[in-house]
Amino acid sequence: MTGRNAFYAQSGGVTAVINASACGVLQTARHNSGEIGKVYAGRNGIIGALTEDLIDTSVESEAAVAALKHTPGAAFGSCRYKLGAIQEHRGQYERLIEVFRAHDIGFFFYNGGGDSQDTAHKVSQLGAELGYPIICVGIPKTMDNDLPITDCSPGFGSVAKYVATSLREAALDLTAMSRTSTKVFTVEMMGRHAGWTTAAAALAAERDGDAPHILLLPEVAFDKERFLAKVEDALERYDQCVIAVSEGVKGADGEFLSATGLKDAFGHAQLGGVAPRVSDLIAGKLGCKCHWAVPTICCVRPVTLPREPILSRLMPSVALRLSSRSPAGMR
Amino acid sequence: MTGRNAFYAQSGGVTAVINASACGVLQTARHNSGEIGKVYAGRNGIIGALTEDLIDTSVESEAAVAALKHTPGAAFGSCRYKLGAIQEHRGQYERLIEVFRAHDIGFFFYNGGGDSQDTAHKVSQLGAELGYPIICVGIPKTMDNDLPITDCSPGFGSVAKYVATSLREAALDLTAMSRTSTKVFTVEMMGRHAGWTTAAAALAAERDGDAPHILLLPEVAFDKERFLAKVEDALERYDQCVIAVSEGVKGADGEFLSATGLKDAFGHAQLGGVAPRVSDLIAGKLGCKCHWAVPTICCVRPVTLPREPILSRLMPSVALRLSSRSPAGMR
Repeated sequence: MTGRNAFYAQSGGVTAVINASACGVLQTARHNSGEIGKVYAGRNGIIGALTEDLIDTSVESEAAVAALKHTPGAAFGSCRYKLGAIQEHRGQYERLIEVFRAHDIGFFFYNGGGDSQDTAHKVSQLGAELGYPIICVGIPKTMDNDLPITDCSPGFGSVAKYVATSLREAALDLTAMSRTSTKVFTVEMMGRHAGWTTAAAALAAERDGDAPHILLLPEVAFDKERFLAKVEDALERYDQCVIAVSEGVKGADGEFLSATGLKDAFGHAQLGGVAPRVSDLIAGKLGCKCHWAVPTICCVRPVTLPREPILSRLMPSVALRLSSRSPAGMR
Repeated sequence: MTGRNAFYAQSGGVTAVINASACGVLQTARHNSGEIGKVYAGRNGIIGALTEDLIDTSVESEAAVAALKHTPGAAFGSCRYKLGAIQEHRGQYERLIEVFRAHDIGFFFYNGGGDSQDTAHKVSQLGAELGYPIICVGIPKTMDNDLPITDCSPGFGSVAKYVATSLREAALDLTAMSRTSTKVFTVEMMGRHAGWTTAAAALAAERDGDAPHILLLPEVAFDKERFLAKVEDALERYDQCVIAVSEGVKGADGEFLSATGLKDAFGHAQLGGVAPRVSDLIAGKLGCKCHWAVPTICCVRPVTLPREPILSRLMPSVALRLSSRSPAGMR
């Protein structure tokens, strides 16, 4: 006996371990084949369901599935696509349920951050409303570690390790050179509203005086004078100053220190470049040599590339598209 | 019988392997104790010689010396300090020779880039002129791979690997997301006048269409219109565009695309932030979502931190300062 099929999708910016979560879903489903049939993955996340672009993972070997644990990127493709409120975008939710019905999907695993958890919840509600039984499970994924209820979300651990290691290495470089070269190093950390990533930089310090000397968290309003005084104090004490600054740091007026004026698909303001602003501020006031870095997710993925990326390039060869048009009755 | 002593110093920005070069010097000297006596390391590079701040490496165990191979930073401290022309700064060169004479230094190993090789050459010349026999050996160190005569300098290989790996990972992230999110990713590469590091990013590509799609080398004048046309072309073909841009890219007018107006101790213009400029250019013209990253040396050091950094913190406990004042006859 085989259970109903499952649909799995990856959402949002990928972490170092999102494919490990995929591996967990696939392996667990295989070990419980009496309850769960095939697992279909959505190509490019939830969009794969809306466009009926499904990937049949059952054709993949055990080895290929196990290798997901060490595969960078989002093996099935991800997206930044928000379904929106049911009231205003009911059609999209109905479309989802209809695609699920066409493929006998009884389980919906959505691997993402806060918005994705919310979507899983809404699909669950609508399934009940439309009389389509579906078990919806949100799988936490975020490097920001800002998901409610979870204590430590998959994705945060690897970022914390990366951030602390890089910052310690940068500090060793600075110590090796600060007598005649760079005195201040500012590194920008991801995390729009949550300071976990920036706070993780503190793991680099073991002894009094170790870097980082200053953390700028998004939860604490930036105070220019107080900040510059702290930089001066660190320079006086340690002849160097290492700063970890969150991309989401705001002034007392509630404005981001560095907003580009652009918004992403979720309507979130796109940020970037607070490190150079902070660095310029220090160089302008104190006149010392400052360096800064803005590593992005690409640097924050301490994974090793396999020789041959498995499920190669979003699995184009095993893509399953049961119909190129919408089945009868679908809009 | 023991040979004359050696002086070893590290100079300039540290690479992932500068301590491996130090290990090579120390081990080779130990294996040739009939010809080379003690190896003294300069604290913070050549400054350690000028201030007679020498570190006696002979007290370190074989294990500690071997562990240098995997130790980040510059174990003995580095500096950006240029001795200048002999004609104008003869006093400094004479001071060097006098410190060398006081410690019976017959070998001078200077581990650095182009300026350091030049300094080793000058010390050699002055030694001959002052009748002080000294063998001066420049040990190449640069991530830029721009040292004359050398084909591949220690420091470049690790950077090339890091750059290509990171870029490939970033490209996988982009591919996973580009349908609904970031379309253009620009990463800034170090290398002021030499495009080796940026060119190494090309190692990430295996197949036609693979990232990087555009390389901006400092050797080729930046042409805005041609560049934007290439970005549009990549977006049309691949729905994404990954760009590796050298920090030292210049316009047709010979001006750096991004100069901060500051200069370092060697008188070199301090650069930074060409990636955000390029990114803004694309976002402004094409209106798509762009991301950029400016990793610095801290990210470009694919080393593993030992549990306990050996020769801890620039070896403060084994520092050798034969005299806190200059010996008689020294200025």
